[in-house]
Order: sequence, then structure tokens, then C-alpha cells
Amino acid sequence: MGTLDGRSVGFIGLGLMGRPMAENLLSAGARVVGHNRSRAVVEDLRAKGLRPARGPGEVAEAADTVILMLPDTDTLEEILLGDRGVVASLRADALVIDMGTTAVMPTRRFAAAVSDAGGHYVDAPVSGGAVGARDAALSIMAGGIPEAFERARPIFEVLGRNVSHVGDVGAGQVTKTVNQVIVGLTIGAVSEALVLAETAGVDPARVRDALMGGFATSRILELHGKRMIDGDFEPGGRARTQRKDMFEAAEFASALGIELPALNLNLELYDRLLERGWGDLDHSALYRLIKDVQKP
Amino acid sequence: MGTLDGRSVGFIGLGLMGRPMAENLLSAGARVVGHNRSRAVVEDLRAKGLRPARGPGEVAEAADTVILMLPDTDTLEEILLGDRGVVASLRADALVIDMGTTAVMPTRRFAAAVSDAGGHYVDAPVSGGAVGARDAALSIMAGGIPEAFERARPIFEVLGRNVSHVGDVGAGQVTKTVNQVIVGLTIGAVSEALVLAETAGVDPARVRDALMGGFATSRILELHGKRMIDGDFEPGGRARTQRKDMFEAAEFASALGIELPALNLNLELYDRLLERGWGDLDHSALYRLIKDVQKP
Repeated sequence: MGTLDGRSVGFIGLGLMGRPMAENLLSAGARVVGHNRSRAVVEDLRAKGLRPARGPGEVAEAADTVILMLPDTDTLEEILLGDRGVVASLRADALVIDMGTTAVMPTRRFAAAVSDAGGHYVDAPVSGGAVGARDAALSIMAGGIPEAFERARPIFEVLGRNVSHVGDVGAGQVTKTVNQVIVGLTIGAVSEALVLAETAGVDPARVRDALMGGFATSRILELHGKRMIDGDFEPGGRARTQRKDMFEAAEFASALGIELPALNLNLELYDRLLERGWGDLDHSALYRLIKDVQKP
Repeated sequence: MGTLDGRSVGFIGLGLMGRPMAENLLSAGARVVGHNRSRAVVEDLRAKGLRPARGPGEVAEAADTVILMLPDTDTLEEILLGDRGVVASLRADALVIDMGTTAVMPTRRFAAAVSDAGGHYVDAPVSGGAVGARDAALSIMAGGIPEAFERARPIFEVLGRNVSHVGDVGAGQVTKTVNQVIVGLTIGAVSEALVLAETAGVDPARVRDALMGGFATSRILELHGKRMIDGDFEPGGRARTQRKDMFEAAEFASALGIELPALNLNLELYDRLLERGWGDLDHSALYRLIKDVQKP
């Protein structure tokens, strides 16, 4: 439980994740100036003490720290580098923190632009979803120079529970990519394993119980395995988002000149899942695809 | 800690796993009659109270419960069904417990043979390795009719910590196969993810630390991820054994008429690992293969 009494924080992107994060900053005593494309949420948050800004530039003019929580890399680029964007209006020595999931190569470009404008950049993507955001229980994986990370740390400690400084600028997004690779592949592993159990006539719920605690234990077996067994594919994390993350990870691996065969296969499987129209199901619906491909 | 005071138990296969298991049974007060191909261990155990038998048949003549802990399916078949084997000398109403890792289809055949001879069969493979065997901390996944499982339970409670009755005969071996599939595929996931981090210039140890606690958490990331980072491939579980388990799982899936693409790919990768002469390294050496295939 950190306290941010009086610290001026700008917040751009008040959606599913950003809104509860901004609320937690307000509760910790920060003076938050915020902007969001859709205005309704801004008006809601005004009642809780948020000061509305008319655009990204106005946020940057008003705050020494600017947090960005945007849906994708293209939107982030527009908000950062566009006319009346954050960089054009940046205060001297300002701290810019990208907490969204952003491709690694553009992250390095954005950091350079912020640096050229006299500011500092930290990439700090999160995992834990909307529930983690609400409960201030996010895992935060941050990249940046140590001084910038230390300035950001009190904010991270308000927003999350598991705060890691993993390396220089870009290292946070690399870690998030790696996280998504493990999540996608582990969902694939549990999917095939449970389909095997079920086809062999063994109750997958009893198999899951028996495996928990041993070498096969994972958070995915625990949470997503249960969803598979219950046939409950309400998202959580959407298959569409998982597919995008695997695609970006595969692109990144390509850019680095390496080949990751299981990642490529998993991306292919998520592609097929989306072709079936299941993109808005939970990412654990990969189990349903593995069952479905068995049909003649 | 169960107690087996005076219960007569036969034990065949006193190797890396079987020996500490038999010692735990002796400590719990069982009267153990044992047999092993290599005799030295039998003599060692005689000092701890084990009664040596000259062969599998003599074990079966002497005990109401016969435990089998053998290295593979072929050896088990010989010991069970061969001349002077267990089945030929089985006591009426005897309980036969296979605690090795055995293919599923033969398991059903062995159970039928034991049943025809008037006995009962429980397949109860374990996970936890030699350390789990020594510490009486094995996970035990058992298949069989409820009455047979209940007769076996006091023994399981002496040998392990996490005892599950997963279904009828064969269900234990199905669960073990499923366990191995998840283990192999999760090792693959962590391998590719850490190679990606490293190639991107981010310290894989810090990545691993950052991911522990989130959705990417698994026992494999914890234990085998550490081995990968340390470059310490002393076995634990051998790559050769993992490859065999993946092969048997793929064969079993084929026999069931299903296709599991990630399993097939993982088997291929372990095949390549063995071709490089790394079969006696730990199964986490898959990481080394993923690094190696990047070389031009």
C-alpha cells in the first residue's frame, strides 16, 4: 500500500484496465489528470476526483508523470507521437510509463522520441487482467534505466503486487511477450492432455485433481483447466487477444532471426480457432478446437 | 503416516524407485518379501528385514499383495505372465499393484489375466522421482475397482502424499501419460520462451522471477526453468525417458484415433535431442536443443 499524496499523475486510456488503475491512484492520494477517447468514463471519474483533460497534449502539459494504458501499439503511437500528442507537449524531465502490451521494436522507437524531448520512458506491461487491476494485484514487468524505474516504483506499488525491474527499455515488453508465449503454449499443453484423458474414457476433472501438486502443476492447469472441464469459455482473456500476442511474439522472433517451432504451431492453432468464429471466447477455448479437429 | 503392522506385501523391482519404497513399507511395519534381478540390493535390504525370494513366482506364493515397480512394459509382462511369473503363482483373491509407468493398452490385458487367475489389479503409477520415493512424498494416480483401491490405499498412504483414485483399471496409466504430456509440452513452452528472452538481450533469470506468481507460473518454470538458466542438465528425469513417454502418449493417441499436434511436434523435438546424443541429460535440455537449432 503505497501513498502518492499530492503526486501529479496523468493517465491516458481509461478502459477495462485503465479505469480501475486510475481509481487506485486516486485512492492513494495522487492528483490525477485523465483523458479517454470515450468521454463517459471521464465524467464518472470526475466525481472521484479526477481532473479531465481535453486530449493527450493537455495531460502531458499538466503532469510530471504520464501513464499510458492503450489497447494496441498503433493507438499508442498516435497518442505519443501524433499532433497534440504527449511528446509534443512533454514537460522537462517528465516520466512516461507505457503499461499496455506493446510490440518491442516500436517501444524502443517511442523511448527514443521521449528521450529526444527531454523525458524518460519506462515500459511496464502488466498481467492479471481487469480483476488484478481492480484489486491492485497486477504483476508489473518494467524496463527502463534504474533512475526512471525508481521514480515509477511508488506508482507500481499502488497498482500491483509483484513489481519487477527486468532490464533496460523494452525489457518489460519482452517479458510480457515471453509471458504470453508460455501462457498460450501451456493452454495448448493442457488442452491436448485433457482431450487425451477424455477420449481414453477417464474423467478429466479427476485427472486434473490428481495432477495438481505434481510436476504438471501450473496456474493454467488450475484456472484454465477448470474452464475447459466446465466448458465455460466466458472470457477472461480473449482468444483473439491471445492470437494477436502469439502473432507478435512470432514476428518478434522472426525479427531476431530465431525459429520457435511450438510457438509457430500454437499461432496456427489460434488462427484456426478464430476461423471458426471463436475469437471472443476465452483463450482456453483452444481445448474446444483440439476436440473439434478430431471430427471427421 | 499409515501403519501396515504385519501386513504381507510382495515387492518386485527394487531399483532407484522401488528400493526406497520397499524401505518405507518395512518402516511402516509391513512384512515384505522381495525380488530383484540384481541380487545385491536384496541382500542390503535383508538387513532391514526384507525376506528375499528367488523369483516373481515365489513372491506371489508368499504375499496377498504384490507390488511391481519395473522399468518398462515388456519387463512387467515377463514378470507377470512369464513362466514362474506372478500370475502363475497367484494366491486366491490376491491384489496386484503395478506402480511403474506402463502403456495403457497392455495394462488392460494384464488386469484381465490377473482377474482370470482370481486376483485383482490396480494400476498406480507415481510421480515425484527418487526423491519423492525416499521421502514418501510420491503422487500416486490409481485405477481399479473401488474395493481393490481401498485395499491398496493404506500402502499408498505409506508411500505417497497425494493419492488419487482416478477411475477403473487403466485410468492410473492414462493419468500418468497425461501428466507426461503436460510436463513435456510445458518444458517446450518454457524452453522457447527463455530462448526468446535471451536472444532479445533480456536476462532470463530476471524474466523467470518476474513471471513467477502470474499466469505463466508452473512447477516446470520454477524447477526446470532454473536448470535451463543455470545450464545444469544433470538428470532429474532423463530426456530419453521423456522421449519414450511422449512416444507412448502419441502411440496411445493414435490407437484412440485422435491427433494431438503439439504432442507430435514435441516428440519430434525430443527425437532430435536424442540424435544429438543428449538422451542422458535432464529433460529440460530441450532448451539446449531450441538454442542449438538456431545455429546456421
